[in-house]
Amino acid sequence: MTELGIVKRNITRANQAAVEKLGRFGVATVHEAMGRVGLMQKYMRPIYSGAPVSGTAVTVLLHPGDNWMMHVVAEQIQPGDIVIAALSADNCDGFFGDLLATSFMARGAKALVIDAGVRDIRELTAMGFPVWSKGISAKGTIKSTLGSVNIPVVCAGVNVNPGDAIVADDDGVVVVPAAWAQKVADAAEAREANEGEKRAKLAAGVLGLDMYNMREPLAKAGLKYID
Amino acid sequence: MTELGIVKRNITRANQAAVEKLGRFGVATVHEAMGRVGLMQKYMRPIYSGAPVSGTAVTVLLHPGDNWMMHVVAEQIQPGDIVIAALSADNCDGFFGDLLATSFMARGAKALVIDAGVRDIRELTAMGFPVWSKGISAKGTIKSTLGSVNIPVVCAGVNVNPGDAIVADDDGVVVVPAAWAQKVADAAEAREANEGEKRAKLAAGVLGLDMYNMREPLAKAGLKYID
Amino acid sequence: MTELGIVKRNITRANQAAVEKLGRFGVATVHEAMGRVGLMQKYMRPIYSGAPVSGTAVTVLLHPGDNWMMHVVAEQIQPGDIVIAALSADNCDGFFGDLLATSFMARGAKALVIDAGVRDIRELTAMGFPVWSKGISAKGTIKSTLGSVNIPVVCAGVNVNPGDAIVADDDGVVVVPAAWAQKVADAAEAREANEGEKRAKLAAGVLGLDMYNMREPLAKAGLKYID
Amino acid sequence: MTELGIVKRNITRANQAAVEKLGRFGVATVHEAMGRVGLMQKYMRPIYSGAPVSGTAVTVLLHPGDNWMMHVVAEQIQPGDIVIAALSADNCDGFFGDLLATSFMARGAKALVIDAGVRDIRELTAMGFPVWSKGISAKGTIKSTLGSVNIPVVCAGVNVNPGDAIVADDDGVVVVPAAWAQKVADAAEAREANEGEKRAKLAAGVLGLDMYNMREPLAKAGLKYID
Amino acid sequence: MTELGIVKRNITRANQAAVEKLGRFGVATVHEAMGRVGLMQKYMRPIYSGAPVSGTAVTVLLHPGDNWMMHVVAEQIQPGDIVIAALSADNCDGFFGDLLATSFMARGAKALVIDAGVRDIRELTAMGFPVWSKGISAKGTIKSTLGSVNIPVVCAGVNVNPGDAIVADDDGVVVVPAAWAQKVADAAEAREANEGEKRAKLAAGVLGLDMYNMREPLAKAGLKYID
Amino acid sequence: MTELGIVKRNITRANQAAVEKLGRFGVATVHEAMGRVGLMQKYMRPIYSGAPVSGTAVTVLLHPGDNWMMHVVAEQIQPGDIVIAALSADNCDGFFGDLLATSFMARGAKALVIDAGVRDIRELTAMGFPVWSKGISAKGTIKSTLGSVNIPVVCAGVNVNPGDAIVADDDGVVVVPAAWAQKVADAAEAREANEGEKRAKLAAGVLGLDMYNMREPLAKAGLKYID
Repeated sequence: MTELGIVKRNITRANQAAVEKLGRFGVATVHEAMGRVGLMQKYMRPIYSGAPVSGTAVTVLLHPGDNWMMHVVAEQIQPGDIVIAALSADNCDGFFGDLLATSFMARGAKALVIDAGVRDIRELTAMGFPVWSKGISAKGTIKSTLGSVNIPVVCAGVNVNPGDAIVADDDGVVVVPAAWAQKVADAAEAREANEGEKRAKLAAGVLGLDMYNMREPLAKAGLKYID
Repeated sequence: MTELGIVKRNITRANQAAVEKLGRFGVATVHEAMGRVGLMQKYMRPIYSGAPVSGTAVTVLLHPGDNWMMHVVAEQIQPGDIVIAALSADNCDGFFGDLLATSFMARGAKALVIDAGVRDIRELTAMGFPVWSKGISAKGTIKSTLGSVNIPVVCAGVNVNPGDAIVADDDGVVVVPAAWAQKVADAAEAREANEGEKRAKLAAGVLGLDMYNMREPLAKAGLKYID
Repeated sequence: MTELGIVKRNITRANQAAVEKLGRFGVATVHEAMGRVGLMQKYMRPIYSGAPVSGTAVTVLLHPGDNWMMHVVAEQIQPGDIVIAALSADNCDGFFGDLLATSFMARGAKALVIDAGVRDIRELTAMGFPVWSKGISAKGTIKSTLGSVNIPVVCAGVNVNPGDAIVADDDGVVVVPAAWAQKVADAAEAREANEGEKRAKLAAGVLGLDMYNMREPLAKAGLKYID
Repeated sequence: MTELGIVKRNITRANQAAVEKLGRFGVATVHEAMGRVGLMQKYMRPIYSGAPVSGTAVTVLLHPGDNWMMHVVAEQIQPGDIVIAALSADNCDGFFGDLLATSFMARGAKALVIDAGVRDIRELTAMGFPVWSKGISAKGTIKSTLGSVNIPVVCAGVNVNPGDAIVADDDGVVVVPAAWAQKVADAAEAREANEGEKRAKLAAGVLGLDMYNMREPLAKAGLKYID
Repeated sequence: MTELGIVKRNITRANQAAVEKLGRFGVATVHEAMGRVGLMQKYMRPIYSGAPVSGTAVTVLLHPGDNWMMHVVAEQIQPGDIVIAALSADNCDGFFGDLLATSFMARGAKALVIDAGVRDIRELTAMGFPVWSKGISAKGTIKSTLGSVNIPVVCAGVNVNPGDAIVADDDGVVVVPAAWAQKVADAAEAREANEGEKRAKLAAGVLGLDMYNMREPLAKAGLKYID
Repeated sequence: MTELGIVKRNITRANQAAVEKLGRFGVATVHEAMGRVGLMQKYMRPIYSGAPVSGTAVTVLLHPGDNWMMHVVAEQIQPGDIVIAALSADNCDGFFGDLLATSFMARGAKALVIDAGVRDIRELTAMGFPVWSKGISAKGTIKSTLGSVNIPVVCAGVNVNPGDAIVADDDGVVVVPAAWAQKVADAAEAREANEGEKRAKLAAGVLGLDMYNMREPLAKAGLKYID
């Protein structure tokens, strides 16, 4: 009755060019461009600081303390993918370390986003394999129970469908539905375009109050200056 | 581009008889019967202790600190519904109090499940309107930004579609996809049926070790008894 | 140089009639009436459920793990006071139990609000002495370091001056500056007055959408109904 | 090499009379009488409010998401025991519900103290089987990995040896080493004895400042009264 | 009735020389020198590691999810100021990013201390604009509700008045009332002065037990050495 | 009656060669080699990133807000030791800074592991003295109450005996009983030995599914591939 024990092999990935373009703008801009939806919970943090990464989601549903399906998902990775690992219940064991990372990198994975813990932080950093996780734990896992691969999952509060575009950086992780990838990338580009001009003005001392014409609405809302 | 600013009026609700049947078994049994998926995060707690409640989901997506859409969702409530309120970002203000509860009850709502805060706890308890929430806060909200009603939402870590069956009790909240409601209800009934017999045996002093034939697998796994 | 080691004996308490009036409306209403400021962090919870309590603040600043000053503040309590206990750093030991409660009650204290832990929960409940605290802990404290009594303190995120009006109920704790007590009580009364009428309408099935004339602004904001 | 997979059948339980006596005083008093050690972390909370419970520890070490050993420990319970369940890593699934409680009660268990989650809260409350836990969760567990029974465990921050005396109430849980049970019970009795007199004095309005002769040491420490 | 909607233009800033001197000692030393008050909650963390920063407070009170007033406070910044942003209720959205930082830097701000979230971490780090915050979130904010500028605020548990001296480093954030700045700076200097000598002794192997003459008080307190 | 106020001078330290060997493998490998016990709670984090450290435990039991015993334990440090500081109750003040670190380093300590807070982060990093702690806080402590040195303590959820081997790195902290040190070091070496070969295979594109022969057990468990 449930969707446990299933591996979906053929998934439709978001347009590769759009995904790459999304990666140029970072999470905050993409999230704004999409209308402020799709952002994972802020407890998802990178294990090391770095440039934005973008890719297409292959998803895996795991059970607490059991990373068996991580080996199953490895086979479904294609170059440019980001593995999105969701849990069926809260758990922060270390589901992933340097051996799995070696395998994921060999398959062409660009990153892992996991709503649980990871370990071998020092080695992962040295290898340059970026991970966003809920925490860090040396506690290992067993290989005993089936989850699923490439089914829709909820990861850190966001629904992720296989093939969705993922953007992750030091600010967090955002999920862009595959069908929206191109439009969101274009919208992000448009936002970014006029940010350069704004930045220059602000750096020159122009106030946001004036640049955004806020003085009148603030006064209308009742703002009072006193000495 | 996003699904903000939308109210879907016609939704397909789970079969009413199935939903009522689900309510007889409680969250733990339903969750087991469904294969251990669909359980909301355990931080969702009832504002008062009581019997299990079941109903059909009408969903609302809210923004932090803004409960405008709670008034919009009220109009879409039909008798037997449970309102599922999701947030676009972490927030625990008091989105709901006795006035909204009066309105929801008048519309026939059976409960509210909200991934944020509520207030007027004393009054809600006196009125007998059950609420599962992330917390309690007297902090009010503004009415300024559009969300949506009856779109799929992620509430406390679980994807909820409008019309899904919801079961909530002192153990938490579980979401049963509308299409599964009857099967899960039947599976829950089957589980419950043989629990009575088990309970009687255990009460009579029979050990689970014997009732479930665990001694052999435990020995095989290497369990050793010492004195 | 600091204000440690000081006991201020004469403080100006908020008008008693205003304080009593505030207690009739509960925290949510008072907080709204004051313009949504003055609410303590929502981690402050009552040790048992009950009716709203109001009183005038006598304040005490304590150090982690040290409740010596609780005996000093006891002497400064006058009938109708609520003791507001702040900490110089995060700590959740049990600073207060049934013996101190006996003493506080004998002095006429109406409640304790403490940004730390308490113990003897069962006894305090039986005695009917209400406490709002950050947590419950059986861990006792020592009597070794001076704090102060009746200086301004920050308790659970809110600045409290001795003599301020305090309202606490199942929704939390709100602080009303002494000088505002009467105006806030009147504003709360006004709010409450027209809530009865609203409640009756909502109970009769009138929607908030209509009662508050929200349909037009929602449409203007772009809300779309689909089937 | 490790102590996993072991069940110790013969343990030395703390003196039964001492254990019963400890139960008369509650956690705060026992903890003080023992010199302020042995208190479990304050996140251990009862699932319902009630009188203090005392008993002798039978211990079980569980793995995250796996309650197999709960059936093994059931057989080792003797009347008057309290089961102390520790986890090998952080986890808050629902390891225990009404069926196991039926079995534990049939064996004579007085309570469960578990550094993890429980479920069937409503049923457990109705049965009157007290549980102290880290949380509540409807999420079930598997039966797959060996832990141990009656080995020393760390539960909620405290080392527990099989046979130790356990006292639990609304304030928390304290562990008294078996060898200390009688002395601690006597010391608790002595503390309690002179509390009655103190309580009467405080109720009559005598201040702790005077009853405990604190005025002089406070003045020596530099306390200043101002008006 | 409330102090919302107010911008105070003229504030008295702490003596600039004293503020700069405070910055030489770091938070731990300043906090000790002030008598262990004024330290913000320890959840306030720098977005990147660096040298201590000191400055004078300009304050802003914001509402959850709304950063409108950040543009208002920008205009009130003078060279050497640190912006202290407080929230009217718990919220961790990203109120501040690289555009606002550009504006703040152009105005001469030395840092931001915000009891909420920030974003554009990578860019802020590259720009060298230090921020202490409660968290990191890519979630943007709206511009809809009035707060106030340069009123007293409670930020991360500490009362801050406009003009107060602020010191922040990897250990946290401390607030020195403007009137105390010189005295605290002098006291910090005195503390620091004799730390060099202590450090040399300790590095040479002298024990704190001897350097601070602790052996006698420890023995008096009952410390026993056993073999 | 309790073990407070005791300093044990002679302790049996784990074999030095075994301890050094353990340090070559890191926490995750040692924890696996020991059978997945002995890992401290994952909230224990290094103040800076670095190579694994190993040493022998000297233990100290402290009280909240009181670091008097840190000076007592300093005298018991021998070259190669790691100080394990446990608390008698939850507290996160800054018990340790650069002066104590200078003293500990002079005595030959390799690291500090403390279930509480530390300060002077910038200085400790510059000195190269590694610390694993529960948090960072500039809040100082008093010197007033006796704890004990070199008694068994529970630190971050794990029982530590004086002389035990400690391994700590970016993944966390693990405790190896002194008597197990050699065997665990050998087992860790064996694990590590065959990891090189595995790593090479995985890097060459061999899947864990094949390398670990998982396909058959997965199929047996019911895993289904769909297109």
